[in-house]
Amino acid sequence: MASTERIRHFQEELERLKARLLEMGGLAEEQVRLAVQGLVAGDRAGIERVLTGDQPVNALHIEIDQRCFTLLALYQPMAVDLRAIVSAVKINTDLERVGDLAINIAEAALRYTVHPPVKRLIDIPKMAAIAQGMLRDALDAFVRRDTALAQRVLNEDDELDALKTQIFRELLTYMLQDPATIEPALDLILISRHLERIGDHATNVAEDVIFMVSARDVRHHAGDQASI
Amino acid sequence: MASTERIRHFQEELERLKARLLEMGGLAEEQVRLAVQGLVAGDRAGIERVLTGDQPVNALHIEIDQRCFTLLALYQPMAVDLRAIVSAVKINTDLERVGDLAINIAEAALRYTVHPPVKRLIDIPKMAAIAQGMLRDALDAFVRRDTALAQRVLNEDDELDALKTQIFRELLTYMLQDPATIEPALDLILISRHLERIGDHATNVAEDVIFMVSARDVRHHAGDQASI
Repeated sequence: MASTERIRHFQEELERLKARLLEMGGLAEEQVRLAVQGLVAGDRAGIERVLTGDQPVNALHIEIDQRCFTLLALYQPMAVDLRAIVSAVKINTDLERVGDLAINIAEAALRYTVHPPVKRLIDIPKMAAIAQGMLRDALDAFVRRDTALAQRVLNEDDELDALKTQIFRELLTYMLQDPATIEPALDLILISRHLERIGDHATNVAEDVIFMVSARDVRHHAGDQASI
Repeated sequence: MASTERIRHFQEELERLKARLLEMGGLAEEQVRLAVQGLVAGDRAGIERVLTGDQPVNALHIEIDQRCFTLLALYQPMAVDLRAIVSAVKINTDLERVGDLAINIAEAALRYTVHPPVKRLIDIPKMAAIAQGMLRDALDAFVRRDTALAQRVLNEDDELDALKTQIFRELLTYMLQDPATIEPALDLILISRHLERIGDHATNVAEDVIFMVSARDVRHHAGDQASI
Protein backbone atom coordinates (compact mmCIF):
# COMPACT_ATOMS: atom_id res chain seq x y z
CA MET A 1 0.00 0.00 0.00
CA ALA A 2 1.38 3.39 -0.98
CA SER A 3 2.24 5.69 1.88
CA THR A 4 -0.27 8.44 1.06
CA GLU A 5 -3.02 5.88 0.63
CA ARG A 6 -2.04 4.34 3.93
CA ILE A 7 -2.33 7.73 5.61
CA ARG A 8 -5.70 8.31 3.98
CA HIS A 9 -6.96 4.92 5.18
CA PHE A 10 -5.75 5.66 8.67
CA GLN A 11 -7.45 9.06 8.74
CA GLU A 12 -10.71 7.51 7.49
CA GLU A 13 -10.57 4.88 10.19
CA LEU A 14 -9.80 7.53 12.80
CA GLU A 15 -12.85 9.52 11.69
CA ARG A 16 -14.97 6.39 11.96
CA LEU A 17 -13.61 5.81 15.46
CA LYS A 18 -14.50 9.35 16.47
CA ALA A 19 -17.99 8.99 15.03
CA ARG A 20 -18.53 5.82 17.08
CA LEU A 21 -17.32 7.56 20.24
CA LEU A 22 -19.75 10.42 19.60
CA GLU A 23 -22.52 7.91 19.06
CA MET A 24 -21.66 6.13 22.30
CA GLY A 25 -21.52 9.45 24.15
CA GLY A 26 -24.94 10.34 22.77
CA LEU A 27 -26.39 7.02 23.92
CA ALA A 28 -24.87 7.25 27.40
CA GLU A 29 -26.05 10.83 27.79
CA GLU A 30 -29.55 9.85 26.67
CA GLN A 31 -29.62 7.09 29.30
CA VAL A 32 -28.74 9.66 31.97
CA ARG A 33 -31.39 12.05 30.67
CA LEU A 34 -34.08 9.36 30.67
CA ALA A 35 -33.16 8.14 34.17
CA VAL A 36 -33.42 11.64 35.65
CA GLN A 37 -36.58 12.37 33.66
CA GLY A 38 -38.11 9.15 35.03
CA LEU A 39 -37.09 10.16 38.55
CA VAL A 40 -38.64 13.63 38.28
CA ALA A 41 -41.86 12.35 36.71
CA GLY A 42 -42.09 9.29 38.98
CA ASP A 43 -42.37 7.27 35.78
CA ARG A 44 -41.48 3.68 36.71
CA ALA A 45 -41.93 2.35 33.17
CA GLY A 46 -39.54 5.00 31.87
CA ILE A 47 -36.98 4.16 34.54
CA GLU A 48 -37.24 0.47 33.74
CA ARG A 49 -36.48 1.18 30.08
CA VAL A 50 -33.18 2.70 31.21
CA LEU A 51 -32.42 -0.40 33.29
CA THR A 52 -32.86 -2.68 30.29
CA GLY A 53 -31.35 -0.25 27.79
CA ASP A 54 -27.63 -0.57 28.45
CA GLN A 55 -26.90 -3.08 25.70
CA PRO A 56 -26.13 -0.57 22.88
CA VAL A 57 -23.59 1.30 25.03
CA ASN A 58 -21.95 -1.96 26.10
CA ALA A 59 -21.77 -3.23 22.52
CA LEU A 60 -20.11 0.01 21.40
CA HIS A 61 -17.68 -0.21 24.31
CA ILE A 62 -16.36 -3.51 22.97
CA GLU A 63 -16.44 -2.40 19.34
CA ILE A 64 -14.53 0.83 19.99
CA ASP A 65 -11.86 -0.99 21.98
CA GLN A 66 -11.38 -3.34 19.05
CA ARG A 67 -11.17 -0.46 16.60
CA CYS A 68 -8.44 1.12 18.73
CA PHE A 69 -6.45 -2.11 18.82
CA THR A 70 -6.78 -2.57 15.09
CA LEU A 71 -5.62 0.99 14.41
CA LEU A 72 -2.62 0.61 16.73
CA ALA A 73 -1.67 -2.77 15.26
CA LEU A 74 -2.14 -1.95 11.58
CA TYR A 75 -0.93 1.63 11.36
CA GLN A 76 1.47 2.07 14.26
CA PRO A 77 0.59 5.76 14.51
CA MET A 78 2.93 8.36 16.03
CA ALA A 79 2.67 11.64 17.94
CA VAL A 80 -0.78 13.24 17.91
CA ASP A 81 -2.36 10.25 16.13
CA LEU A 82 -0.99 7.85 18.72
CA ARG A 83 -2.23 10.13 21.49
CA ALA A 84 -5.64 10.32 19.79
CA ILE A 85 -6.05 6.55 19.84
CA VAL A 86 -4.82 6.05 23.39
CA SER A 87 -7.19 8.88 24.36
CA ALA A 88 -9.98 7.06 22.56
CA VAL A 89 -9.28 3.95 24.66
CA LYS A 90 -9.59 6.02 27.82
CA ILE A 91 -12.62 7.99 26.66
CA ASN A 92 -14.30 4.72 25.76
CA THR A 93 -13.85 3.56 29.36
CA ASP A 94 -15.22 6.86 30.68
CA LEU A 95 -18.30 6.64 28.48
CA GLU A 96 -18.98 3.08 29.52
CA ARG A 97 -18.87 4.19 33.17
CA VAL A 98 -21.34 6.99 32.35
CA GLY A 99 -23.65 4.29 30.99
CA ASP A 100 -23.19 2.34 34.24
CA LEU A 101 -23.94 5.46 36.27
CA ALA A 102 -27.18 5.97 34.32
CA ILE A 103 -28.12 2.47 35.46
CA ASN A 104 -27.16 3.32 39.06
CA ILE A 105 -29.30 6.47 38.87
CA ALA A 106 -32.22 4.46 37.47
CA GLU A 107 -31.89 1.86 40.26
CA ALA A 108 -32.00 4.58 42.93
CA ALA A 109 -34.83 6.35 41.08
CA LEU A 110 -36.89 3.15 41.05
CA ARG A 111 -36.47 2.79 44.82
CA TYR A 112 -37.29 6.49 45.26
CA THR A 113 -40.64 6.20 43.47
CA VAL A 114 -41.84 3.68 46.07
CA HIS A 115 -41.99 6.46 48.69
CA PRO A 116 -43.91 9.74 48.73
CA PRO A 117 -41.68 12.38 47.13
CA VAL A 118 -39.43 14.17 49.64
CA LYS A 119 -39.59 17.47 47.76
CA ARG A 120 -39.97 18.95 44.33
CA LEU A 121 -36.76 18.13 42.48
CA ILE A 122 -35.04 21.17 41.04
CA ASP A 123 -31.33 20.88 41.76
CA ILE A 124 -30.97 17.26 40.64
CA PRO A 125 -32.27 17.97 37.11
CA LYS A 126 -29.98 21.02 37.14
CA MET A 127 -27.00 18.83 38.04
CA ALA A 128 -28.00 16.37 35.32
CA ALA A 129 -28.20 19.14 32.71
CA ILE A 130 -24.75 20.43 33.66
CA ALA A 131 -23.18 16.97 33.66
CA GLN A 132 -24.75 16.11 30.29
CA GLY A 133 -23.57 19.42 28.83
CA MET A 134 -20.04 18.81 30.12
CA LEU A 135 -19.98 15.37 28.54
CA ARG A 136 -21.26 16.69 25.20
CA ASP A 137 -18.76 19.55 25.18
CA ALA A 138 -15.87 17.25 26.13
CA LEU A 139 -16.66 14.91 23.25
CA ASP A 140 -17.05 17.81 20.82
CA ALA A 141 -13.69 19.07 22.03
CA PHE A 142 -12.20 15.64 21.32
CA VAL A 143 -13.60 15.44 17.80
CA ARG A 144 -12.62 19.02 16.92
CA ARG A 145 -9.35 18.96 18.89
CA ASP A 146 -10.58 22.08 20.64
CA THR A 147 -8.53 22.69 23.81
CA ALA A 148 -10.35 25.94 24.66
CA LEU A 149 -13.64 24.04 24.84
CA ALA A 150 -11.96 21.29 26.88
CA GLN A 151 -10.72 23.92 29.31
CA ARG A 152 -14.27 25.27 29.71
CA VAL A 153 -15.43 21.77 30.65
CA LEU A 154 -12.77 21.63 33.39
CA ASN A 155 -14.03 24.93 34.79
CA GLU A 156 -17.62 23.71 35.06
CA ASP A 157 -16.82 20.99 37.56
CA ASP A 158 -16.95 23.38 40.52
CA GLU A 159 -20.59 24.24 39.84
CA LEU A 160 -21.51 20.57 39.96
CA ASP A 161 -19.65 20.16 43.22
CA ALA A 162 -21.42 23.16 44.79
CA LEU A 163 -24.83 21.79 43.78
CA LYS A 164 -23.99 18.39 45.24
CA THR A 165 -23.06 19.98 48.59
CA GLN A 166 -26.23 22.10 48.58
CA ILE A 167 -28.42 19.07 47.82
CA PHE A 168 -26.75 17.13 50.62
CA ARG A 169 -27.32 19.87 53.21
CA GLU A 170 -30.92 20.34 52.22
CA LEU A 171 -31.74 16.64 52.32
CA LEU A 172 -29.99 16.22 55.64
CA THR A 173 -32.39 18.81 57.10
CA TYR A 174 -35.36 16.83 55.80
CA MET A 175 -33.99 13.60 57.24
CA LEU A 176 -33.39 15.12 60.66
CA GLN A 177 -36.90 16.56 60.76
CA ASP A 178 -38.81 13.54 59.52
CA PRO A 179 -37.48 9.96 59.65
CA ALA A 180 -39.97 8.94 56.96
CA THR A 181 -37.83 10.88 54.47
CA ILE A 182 -34.58 9.10 55.39
CA GLU A 183 -34.80 6.29 52.89
CA PRO A 184 -35.90 8.31 49.83
CA ALA A 185 -33.56 11.19 50.72
CA LEU A 186 -30.67 8.70 50.82
CA ASP A 187 -31.45 7.73 47.24
CA LEU A 188 -31.46 11.37 46.16
CA ILE A 189 -28.07 11.85 47.81
CA LEU A 190 -26.73 8.82 45.95
CA ILE A 191 -28.16 10.13 42.68
CA SER A 192 -26.45 13.49 43.19
CA ARG A 193 -23.16 11.63 43.73
CA HIS A 194 -23.68 9.63 40.55
CA LEU A 195 -24.25 12.87 38.64
CA GLU A 196 -21.12 14.34 40.15
CA ARG A 197 -19.18 11.32 38.91
CA ILE A 198 -20.56 11.81 35.40
CA GLY A 199 -19.04 15.28 35.59
CA ASP A 200 -15.76 13.66 36.70
CA HIS A 201 -15.80 11.46 33.61
CA ALA A 202 -16.43 14.51 31.39
CA THR A 203 -13.46 16.12 33.12
CA ASN A 204 -11.32 13.07 32.35
CA VAL A 205 -12.29 13.33 28.68
CA ALA A 206 -11.44 17.04 28.64
CA GLU A 207 -8.03 16.33 30.19
CA ASP A 208 -7.39 13.68 27.54
CA VAL A 209 -8.25 16.20 24.81
CA ILE A 210 -5.72 18.70 26.14
CA PHE A 211 -3.09 15.97 26.36
CA MET A 212 -3.88 14.68 22.89
CA VAL A 213 -3.65 18.10 21.22
CA SER A 214 -0.82 19.72 23.14
CA ALA A 215 0.96 16.73 24.73
CA ARG A 216 0.49 18.69 27.93
CA ASP A 217 -0.60 16.75 30.98
CA VAL A 218 -3.01 18.88 33.03
CA ARG A 219 -3.87 16.16 35.50
CA HIS A 220 -2.75 16.48 39.09
CA HIS A 221 -1.69 20.09 38.35
CA ALA A 222 1.15 18.78 36.22
CA GLY A 223 0.40 21.58 33.75
CA ASP A 224 3.90 22.53 32.81
CA GLN A 225 5.31 19.09 32.45
CA ALA A 226 6.36 18.05 28.96
CA SER A 227 5.22 14.68 27.75
CA ILE A 228 6.15 12.54 24.80
CA MET B 1 19.46 -1.79 16.63
CA ALA B 2 19.49 -5.51 15.94
CA SER B 3 16.14 -7.20 16.15
CA THR B 4 16.93 -9.50 19.09
CA GLU B 5 18.42 -6.61 21.02
CA ARG B 6 15.36 -4.56 20.23
CA ILE B 7 13.12 -7.30 21.61
CA ARG B 8 15.27 -7.56 24.73
CA HIS B 9 15.06 -3.80 25.29
CA PHE B 10 11.30 -3.90 24.85
CA GLN B 11 10.91 -6.77 27.31
CA GLU B 12 13.09 -4.96 29.86
CA GLU B 13 10.99 -1.81 29.52
CA LEU B 14 7.81 -3.84 29.82
CA GLU B 15 9.10 -5.40 33.05
CA ARG B 16 9.92 -1.93 34.36
CA LEU B 17 6.40 -0.80 33.46
CA LYS B 18 4.90 -3.73 35.34
CA ALA B 19 7.08 -3.03 38.36
CA ARG B 20 5.87 0.58 38.42
CA LEU B 21 2.24 -0.54 38.18
CA LEU B 22 2.78 -2.92 41.11
CA GLU B 23 4.38 -0.11 43.07
CA MET B 24 1.48 2.19 42.31
CA GLY B 25 -1.01 -0.53 43.28
CA GLY B 26 0.84 -1.01 46.57
CA LEU B 27 0.73 2.71 47.31
CA ALA B 28 -2.97 3.04 46.46
CA GLU B 29 -3.81 -0.03 48.54
CA GLU B 30 -1.82 1.33 51.48
CA GLN B 31 -3.76 4.61 51.27
CA VAL B 32 -7.02 2.65 51.47
CA ARG B 33 -5.71 0.60 54.40
CA LEU B 34 -4.60 3.70 56.31
CA ALA B 35 -7.89 5.52 55.68
CA VAL B 36 -9.96 2.61 57.02
CA GLN B 37 -7.56 2.08 59.92
CA GLY B 38 -7.89 5.78 60.81
CA LEU B 39 -11.67 5.48 60.63
CA VAL B 40 -11.81 2.44 62.92
CA ALA B 41 -9.36 3.92 65.44
CA GLY B 42 -10.87 7.42 65.28
CA ASP B 43 -7.33 8.61 64.55
CA ARG B 44 -7.67 12.05 62.95
CA ALA B 45 -3.93 12.54 62.50
CA GLY B 46 -3.71 9.21 60.67
CA ILE B 47 -6.64 10.16 58.42
CA GLU B 48 -5.06 13.51 57.64
CA ARG B 49 -1.87 11.79 56.51
CA VAL B 50 -3.94 9.96 53.90
CA LEU B 51 -5.46 13.26 52.74
CA THR B 52 -2.05 14.78 52.13
CA GLY B 53 -0.44 11.55 50.90
CA ASP B 54 -1.79 11.26 47.35
CA GLN B 55 1.19 12.82 45.61
CA PRO B 56 3.21 9.60 45.03
CA VAL B 57 0.25 7.84 43.41
CA ASN B 58 -0.46 10.85 41.19
CA ALA B 59 3.19 11.15 40.14
CA LEU B 60 3.24 7.46 39.19
CA HIS B 61 0.00 7.91 37.26
CA ILE B 62 1.69 10.43 34.97
CA GLU B 63 4.95 8.51 34.75
CA ILE B 64 3.27 5.22 33.82
CA ASP B 65 1.19 6.88 31.13
CA GLN B 66 4.37 8.30 29.64
CA ARG B 67 6.08 4.92 29.75
CA CYS B 68 3.15 3.40 27.87
CA PHE B 69 3.32 6.08 25.18
CA THR B 70 7.05 5.65 24.81
CA LEU B 71 6.72 1.89 24.47
CA LEU B 72 3.98 2.21 21.86
CA ALA B 73 5.86 4.87 19.89
CA LEU B 74 9.32 3.29 19.98
CA TYR B 75 8.56 -0.41 19.66
CA GLN B 76 5.18 -0.59 17.94
CA PRO B 77 4.39 -3.85 19.71
CA MET B 78 1.92 -6.42 18.35
CA ALA B 79 -0.51 -9.01 19.70
CA VAL B 80 -0.10 -9.85 23.39
CA ASP B 81 2.54 -7.12 23.89
CA LEU B 82 0.25 -4.49 22.39
CA ARG B 83 -2.60 -5.72 24.56
CA ALA B 84 -0.31 -5.63 27.62
CA ILE B 85 0.50 -1.96 27.08
CA VAL B 86 -3.05 -0.87 26.34
CA SER B 87 -4.06 -2.83 29.45
CA ALA B 88 -1.38 -0.98 31.40
CA VAL B 89 -2.91 2.34 30.30
CA LYS B 90 -6.30 1.21 31.58
CA ILE B 91 -4.96 -0.33 34.80
CA ASN B 92 -3.08 2.90 35.46
CA THR B 93 -6.38 4.78 35.30
CA ASP B 94 -8.03 2.27 37.63
CA LEU B 95 -5.24 2.55 40.19
CA GLU B 96 -5.37 6.32 40.13
CA ARG B 97 -9.10 6.14 40.88
CA VAL B 98 -8.39 3.79 43.79
CA GLY B 99 -6.04 6.47 45.13
CA ASP B 100 -8.84 9.03 44.72
CA LEU B 101 -11.26 6.72 46.52
CA ALA B 102 -8.83 6.41 49.44
CA ILE B 103 -9.01 10.21 49.67
CA ASN B 104 -12.82 10.09 49.53
CA ILE B 105 -12.83 7.49 52.31
CA ALA B 106 -10.49 9.64 54.40
CA GLU B 107 -12.70 12.72 53.88
CA ALA B 108 -15.77 10.82 55.07
CA ALA B 109 -13.77 9.27 57.94
CA LEU B 110 -12.67 12.69 59.11
CA ARG B 111 -16.30 13.89 59.20
CA TYR B 112 -17.29 10.66 60.97
CA THR B 113 -14.84 11.16 63.82
CA VAL B 114 -16.56 14.44 64.76
CA HIS B 115 -19.60 12.49 65.99
CA PRO B 116 -19.90 9.78 68.65
CA PRO B 117 -19.37 6.41 66.89
CA VAL B 118 -22.60 4.88 65.57
CA LYS B 119 -21.47 1.33 66.23
CA ARG B 120 -18.41 -0.86 66.43
CA LEU B 121 -17.16 -1.16 62.87
CA ILE B 122 -16.76 -4.75 61.72
CA ASP B 123 -18.15 -5.05 58.21
CA ILE B 124 -16.40 -1.97 56.82
CA PRO B 125 -12.91 -3.25 57.68
CA LYS B 126 -14.04 -6.59 56.25
CA MET B 127 -15.06 -4.90 53.00
CA ALA B 128 -11.75 -3.04 52.92
CA ALA B 129 -9.78 -6.27 53.39
CA ILE B 130 -11.68 -7.96 50.56
CA ALA B 131 -11.29 -4.98 48.20
CA GLN B 132 -7.57 -4.69 48.96
CA GLY B 133 -7.10 -8.43 48.41
CA MET B 134 -8.94 -8.23 45.08
CA LEU B 135 -6.74 -5.38 43.95
CA ARG B 136 -3.54 -7.17 44.97
CA ASP B 137 -4.63 -10.41 43.27
CA ALA B 138 -5.68 -8.58 40.10
CA LEU B 139 -2.28 -6.90 39.83
CA ASP B 140 -0.47 -10.17 40.54
CA ALA B 141 -2.57 -11.75 37.82
CA PHE B 142 -1.50 -8.97 35.43
CA VAL B 143 2.18 -9.36 36.18
CA ARG B 144 2.09 -13.16 36.00
CA ARG B 145 -0.46 -13.29 33.15
CA ASP B 146 -2.51 -15.59 35.37
CA THR B 147 -6.08 -15.79 34.05
CA ALA B 148 -7.17 -18.28 36.72
CA LEU B 149 -6.28 -15.77 39.43
CA ALA B 150 -8.02 -13.01 37.46
CA GLN B 151 -11.13 -15.15 37.29
CA ARG B 152 -11.06 -15.63 41.08
CA VAL B 153 -11.01 -11.83 41.47
CA LEU B 154 -14.14 -11.57 39.34
CA ASN B 155 -15.90 -14.10 41.57
CA GLU B 156 -15.16 -12.15 44.75
CA ASP B 157 -17.15 -9.11 43.70
CA ASP B 158 -20.45 -10.63 44.88
CA GLU B 159 -19.20 -10.88 48.46
CA LEU B 160 -18.39 -7.18 48.47
CA ASP B 161 -21.81 -6.36 47.08
CA ALA B 162 -23.54 -8.46 49.76
CA LEU B 163 -21.59 -6.74 52.54
CA LYS B 164 -22.47 -3.32 51.13
CA THR B 165 -26.19 -4.19 51.16
CA GLN B 166 -25.95 -5.56 54.70
CA ILE B 167 -24.17 -2.43 55.95
CA PHE B 168 -26.79 -0.24 54.30
CA ARG B 169 -29.70 -2.10 55.93
CA GLU B 170 -28.12 -2.05 59.35
CA LEU B 171 -27.26 1.64 59.22
CA LEU B 172 -30.73 2.51 57.96
CA THR B 173 -32.16 0.90 61.11
CA TYR B 174 -29.90 3.05 63.28
CA MET B 175 -30.89 6.19 61.39
CA LEU B 176 -34.60 5.47 61.72
CA GLN B 177 -34.27 4.85 65.47
CA ASP B 178 -32.06 7.80 66.35
CA PRO B 179 -31.75 10.96 64.20
CA ALA B 180 -28.44 11.76 65.92
CA THR B 181 -26.90 8.88 63.98
CA ILE B 182 -28.08 10.13 60.57
CA GLU B 183 -25.07 12.23 59.70
CA PRO B 184 -22.32 9.80 60.77
CA ALA B 185 -24.26 6.80 59.38
CA LEU B 186 -24.44 8.58 56.02
CA ASP B 187 -20.67 8.78 55.98
CA LEU B 188 -20.36 5.08 56.71
CA ILE B 189 -22.75 4.33 53.84
CA LEU B 190 -20.64 6.48 51.53
CA ILE B 191 -17.47 4.72 52.70
CA SER B 192 -19.00 1.32 51.97
CA ARG B 193 -19.83 2.55 48.44
CA HIS B 194 -16.27 3.78 47.95
CA LEU B 195 -14.98 0.35 48.99
CA GLU B 196 -17.40 -1.32 46.60
CA ARG B 197 -15.99 0.85 43.81
CA ILE B 198 -12.45 -0.20 44.70
CA GLY B 199 -13.67 -3.74 44.13
CA ASP B 200 -15.07 -2.60 40.76
CA HIS B 201 -11.66 -1.26 39.78
CA ALA B 202 -10.03 -4.56 40.78
CA THR B 203 -12.63 -6.26 38.59
CA ASN B 204 -11.71 -4.00 35.68
CA VAL B 205 -8.06 -4.95 36.10
CA ALA B 206 -8.95 -8.65 36.19
CA GLU B 207 -11.00 -8.29 32.99
CA ASP B 208 -8.07 -6.57 31.32
CA VAL B 209 -5.78 -9.44 32.34
CA ILE B 210 -8.09 -12.00 30.74
CA PHE B 211 -8.29 -9.88 27.59
CA MET B 212 -4.54 -9.36 27.49
CA VAL B 213 -3.69 -13.05 27.84
CA SER B 214 -6.43 -14.68 25.84
CA ALA B 215 -7.70 -11.81 23.63
CA ARG B 216 -11.08 -12.77 25.08
CA ASP B 217 -13.37 -9.96 26.13
CA VAL B 218 -15.26 -11.01 29.26
CA ARG B 219 -16.88 -7.63 29.79
CA HIS B 220 -20.63 -7.30 29.37
CA HIS B 221 -20.85 -11.11 29.14
CA ALA B 222 -19.14 -10.95 25.79
CA GLY B 223 -17.22 -14.06 26.86
CA ASP B 224 -17.32 -15.95 23.60
CA GLN B 225 -16.54 -13.09 21.31
CA ALA B 226 -13.24 -13.21 19.50
CA SER B 227 -11.11 -10.10 19.54
CA ILE B 228 -8.05 -9.00 17.67
